Amino acid sequence: MARAAVLGGSGYTGGELLRLLAAHPDIEVTEATSREYAGKPVYMVHQHLRGFYSIRFTRTSFDRIPDVDIVFNALPHGVAVEYTATLVDHGIKVVDLSADYRLRDPGEYERWYGFTHPRPDLLEKAVYGIPELHRDEIRGASLVASPGCNATAAILSLAPIARTGLIRGPVLVDVKAGSSEGGSKPKRGSHHPEREGAARPYSPSGHRHEAEAEQELSILAGSRVSVSLVPHAVSMVRGVLASGHLWVGEVDERVLAREYASLYGGERFIRVIPRGQVVDVKNVVGSHFVDVGYAYDQRTGRLTGFAALDNLIRGAAGQAVHSANIMLGLREEEGLLMPPLRP
Amino acid sequence: MARAAVLGGSGYTGGELLRLLAAHPDIEVTEATSREYAGKPVYMVHQHLRGFYSIRFTRTSFDRIPDVDIVFNALPHGVAVEYTATLVDHGIKVVDLSADYRLRDPGEYERWYGFTHPRPDLLEKAVYGIPELHRDEIRGASLVASPGCNATAAILSLAPIARTGLIRGPVLVDVKAGSSEGGSKPKRGSHHPEREGAARPYSPSGHRHEAEAEQELSILAGSRVSVSLVPHAVSMVRGVLASGHLWVGEVDERVLAREYASLYGGERFIRVIPRGQVVDVKNVVGSHFVDVGYAYDQRTGRLTGFAALDNLIRGAAGQAVHSANIMLGLREEEGLLMPPLRP
Amino acid sequence: MARAAVLGGSGYTGGELLRLLAAHPDIEVTEATSREYAGKPVYMVHQHLRGFYSIRFTRTSFDRIPDVDIVFNALPHGVAVEYTATLVDHGIKVVDLSADYRLRDPGEYERWYGFTHPRPDLLEKAVYGIPELHRDEIRGASLVASPGCNATAAILSLAPIARTGLIRGPVLVDVKAGSSEGGSKPKRGSHHPEREGAARPYSPSGHRHEAEAEQELSILAGSRVSVSLVPHAVSMVRGVLASGHLWVGEVDERVLAREYASLYGGERFIRVIPRGQVVDVKNVVGSHFVDVGYAYDQRTGRLTGFAALDNLIRGAAGQAVHSANIMLGLREEEGLLMPPLRP
Amino acid sequence: MARAAVLGGSGYTGGELLRLLAAHPDIEVTEATSREYAGKPVYMVHQHLRGFYSIRFTRTSFDRIPDVDIVFNALPHGVAVEYTATLVDHGIKVVDLSADYRLRDPGEYERWYGFTHPRPDLLEKAVYGIPELHRDEIRGASLVASPGCNATAAILSLAPIARTGLIRGPVLVDVKAGSSEGGSKPKRGSHHPEREGAARPYSPSGHRHEAEAEQELSILAGSRVSVSLVPHAVSMVRGVLASGHLWVGEVDERVLAREYASLYGGERFIRVIPRGQVVDVKNVVGSHFVDVGYAYDQRTGRLTGFAALDNLIRGAAGQAVHSANIMLGLREEEGLLMPPLRP
Repeated sequence: MARAAVLGGSGYTGGELLRLLAAHPDIEVTEATSREYAGKPVYMVHQHLRGFYSIRFTRTSFDRIPDVDIVFNALPHGVAVEYTATLVDHGIKVVDLSADYRLRDPGEYERWYGFTHPRPDLLEKAVYGIPELHRDEIRGASLVASPGCNATAAILSLAPIARTGLIRGPVLVDVKAGSSEGGSKPKRGSHHPEREGAARPYSPSGHRHEAEAEQELSILAGSRVSVSLVPHAVSMVRGVLASGHLWVGEVDERVLAREYASLYGGERFIRVIPRGQVVDVKNVVGSHFVDVGYAYDQRTGRLTGFAALDNLIRGAAGQAVHSANIMLGLREEEGLLMPPLRP
Repeated sequence: MARAAVLGGSGYTGGELLRLLAAHPDIEVTEATSREYAGKPVYMVHQHLRGFYSIRFTRTSFDRIPDVDIVFNALPHGVAVEYTATLVDHGIKVVDLSADYRLRDPGEYERWYGFTHPRPDLLEKAVYGIPELHRDEIRGASLVASPGCNATAAILSLAPIARTGLIRGPVLVDVKAGSSEGGSKPKRGSHHPEREGAARPYSPSGHRHEAEAEQELSILAGSRVSVSLVPHAVSMVRGVLASGHLWVGEVDERVLAREYASLYGGERFIRVIPRGQVVDVKNVVGSHFVDVGYAYDQRTGRLTGFAALDNLIRGAAGQAVHSANIMLGLREEEGLLMPPLRP
Repeated sequence: MARAAVLGGSGYTGGELLRLLAAHPDIEVTEATSREYAGKPVYMVHQHLRGFYSIRFTRTSFDRIPDVDIVFNALPHGVAVEYTATLVDHGIKVVDLSADYRLRDPGEYERWYGFTHPRPDLLEKAVYGIPELHRDEIRGASLVASPGCNATAAILSLAPIARTGLIRGPVLVDVKAGSSEGGSKPKRGSHHPEREGAARPYSPSGHRHEAEAEQELSILAGSRVSVSLVPHAVSMVRGVLASGHLWVGEVDERVLAREYASLYGGERFIRVIPRGQVVDVKNVVGSHFVDVGYAYDQRTGRLTGFAALDNLIRGAAGQAVHSANIMLGLREEEGLLMPPLRP
Repeated sequence: MARAAVLGGSGYTGGELLRLLAAHPDIEVTEATSREYAGKPVYMVHQHLRGFYSIRFTRTSFDRIPDVDIVFNALPHGVAVEYTATLVDHGIKVVDLSADYRLRDPGEYERWYGFTHPRPDLLEKAVYGIPELHRDEIRGASLVASPGCNATAAILSLAPIARTGLIRGPVLVDVKAGSSEGGSKPKRGSHHPEREGAARPYSPSGHRHEAEAEQELSILAGSRVSVSLVPHAVSMVRGVLASGHLWVGEVDERVLAREYASLYGGERFIRVIPRGQVVDVKNVVGSHFVDVGYAYDQRTGRLTGFAALDNLIRGAAGQAVHSANIMLGLREEEGLLMPPLRP
């Protein structure tokens, strides 16, 4: 049984890590930290986990390196960076769920986040944690930068298309996201009476996750891809749907189908939905699965790749556990095979 | 007091016409038809209208021309066409809420709907019923083809941009729509346990309303515009949000601001939302208002126009009443000035 | 045109007052106060009201008596009391929407709210503002204490039953309430991801509104009635449904029907729903209507009275406007006749 | 690995059985029947289960006794009865999820369902399938009648109170239920635009599940208990909250606490929530857990027991699997220990 610590365990990502790991046969959480709730039992914050944990949150601190095999760092962007570095320096495997190690080029941190990355050396070692795209690198990694829901959905909606070489102009990924994406901190925009029934864009220009999507899709395409990512808050709690739009002119759909099969066909957690059937967050919520598919419109030469996932599982905690399983030499599916919850 | 009939009064559009006209100071519904509910009191179908109507539904029929000043035809596409023609031939003003008279070119009906339009002569006389774009033609019209929610939102999200001449390539309108758009007939996809929490595309290629959007935006642009319209079902009852995406390269935003002010500045029912503030269906649901705005991303040269509206009011019944007010020489705002219902 | 001020205009009740009065033909809001948003335009807080108000919030203050015909006091319980007293002392008519003047017996304030009421003289003059129950007293009143949603729903669900003399034992009112009841201040329990999909009791013992319900139902019954009120948060934004349960043994239902007809038959805003048809918040949301009905179970001798209403309209702002119309000698229905918004 | 068949596998209960058993380590579904979808792959009906099942639905039929260790009969009430009898006669263990074997007294079927039970002999052998109340009988049973969500919630909300002897008068259980309770068949009342935002009673008198609740609570109380069960449709998909109200006068709360501890303290799947903390369906949805608690109001002598559960898991499929585990000699928790999904 591998031992794990969760840093920043009181938010939604932390709670989801605790929830998934409570049912994991080979990983046990022996420590969870929270600045705000240090000293409180886990189930006082995550009331649904009553009966699953007897531990209490501890303070997040540099002073003591936790005695664990792996750390899930769910601290916020900018805060996570130093903790992760310290742990890696001490030889602890880390899955960092913040954005702090996702970009390979330190210059991109200046550009998008306005901060000078303190450890460009670790950026070189960090692996971008979408297992289906970087499985082999994750296997040997000591640091995995586990991506969030918008970027994961955007990338997986377009990955096979990128590999075909069909992306020749700019790409527009229109994202519809549930309210849990915004985190556990109450604020006006996520107050129930304000959020229920809403549909509105947020960060409609210059969204930071464009950087990740461009990095990964450019690798897949073998050339520089320009990505616009426009997220919209819609009226649901869990789930992200990415619709990646581009114009490709005339296309042989068999080429597309072959590429989807080649990239995703052997993947346990990615389901390719045939044309005419539906890619819907309802079919993946509560699970680690990603449903993908595409629509092609001959008249306008427009192609749209779709990806639906659960933002807290595949877009956060589940993806981190997936990488951890690989890093620890466990079976990839361990703790992740629960079927989606529908209806 | 003008007298009105509603054909097809038992669906959601019919119910909304009855709801709005119940509070209209100058139009009175004296007849409402329904094949399915003929003989039943209006409030048995529209239970929320108990206390507002004592009439019963009558059969929809050609045999008797209703003794009214105006007819709202809310029959389905393909069914509406003959009723409208008969009424117009008898000199009755008609607002037709189906798609049957929205396209000017009869050939488009062959192309998009696969049917030979029986009355190309009326297509020439019919006016496309977005009052802000065709006010003068509506004033003298005997037949107004009142557009639906997807097309109205798509067109209004991009109208000022079209007028600036910035649309040089294809346009992608990504639409998020509430469940009432699908009508009042229960089906698996709109069964509550299946629809609540869902986010999924529908008709993701070749959506018929592209024809209308192209027709109107091309007029505004002064040249042919190619529009892709990709609607998504999201988890709300009322509301449509259109995000019209295109690439424009470098842009002087003052030109855009001027065009928005010029086209919409004097309009009572279109509210231009300044950058940094939010276009949200929550701010318009329950009202005839359309909130519009745009986001421009300099890095990628991408521009997105947004429009939010209530699909049953501005996207159906309210827009029909708006046209009727103009056709009947009433004040445009009559019966339409209720503020949005929030939260 | 009567002039009105709204004290505490930035919360949900304040916003709803502004929304309703924006469409009121005979009352105009000339002043709205807010401690938090003083100086800000009304539409910055209530974005849906953009285009309806040009005024800005002012500070709530005792220093200046507003030059108006009536004041709607939407300040919180305990804060409202002094403002209302000062205004009434200056001869201004006041509708107070807090709990501060709803109970006739000053001792009840000690018991339920733990505070000594500073103006027992005004408690004697204040009228409990359910117009259907106190219309004549409201007509001559200078101070109306306008009740909230739970108490209004509880009382109206049981009023005809109380009048029949059928209430002989304790009564249990089980309430289901939407999230807007909790006000506009974000907090953990009303954070969208926490509130959507929830069903849970709150204040399940000793709910303060029991005092009002007992006061009013005892008057109607002509003897002391014991009321338990158990509210539950359910997953909707607007609406309250009260189910008032009691045991009555064998009952002649014609007596009940007669009492419903006698009490509510002539009321424009209360709709008696026949047995077998449904009392549903969906049929009243967006309106001032209350739908009432009852179910009787012969086997167990159990009787349940139901009442459904919109908590922000009939349960707050609408009821206040209703009383104001009466106090100002206007037609009762002014500004309140909008039909419910469904679906 | 035990082999199982699911009769009536295309509805929500059937789908949930398939979902739970897909993750069960010791039970494998080798056959699933559906009249409507015979011949179709399981994942065409239950799209979320794509990747979990390769079998197709077969016809439900008497002709062939399935070669399995246990049958889950999820056919509708009245249809299930003969299939179950035939299987039991052939020596197959059956968990029947319909109401057809839940009542011990054949006369109750006449009274509540208006049908003469064909197999009173089996009613004697059938065990009422709430494992916490009938564990020992289930162990040796060949037929378990697995109860539904309303009855389970009602019974568990009041079981400890019944055991204390505090129930001396009639009991009122007010239930709030999600839309999935109504099954997978679309109808007007569960059409998304009609159901979302609704709160309304259904079957508010003479609800059939009163019979089960009375049967079980009377056993626990040791004397005849009269139960009124009033269910309300509220705006959520999954979840049931039962609030069991009664009047008990003066009560020593330590007695209550002791009884809760005695009855539920050792149960893995029932969590007793301390006073002041919340019983909320949000904390149990997606799991087999039941959260219970109570509120006592000294002033009125009123006591309310609460129980929250997931209607498709604990109120249907999970409870059936729980009984099956016991009948098959497996560990009780097998396949049921997934933590609740929150937020």
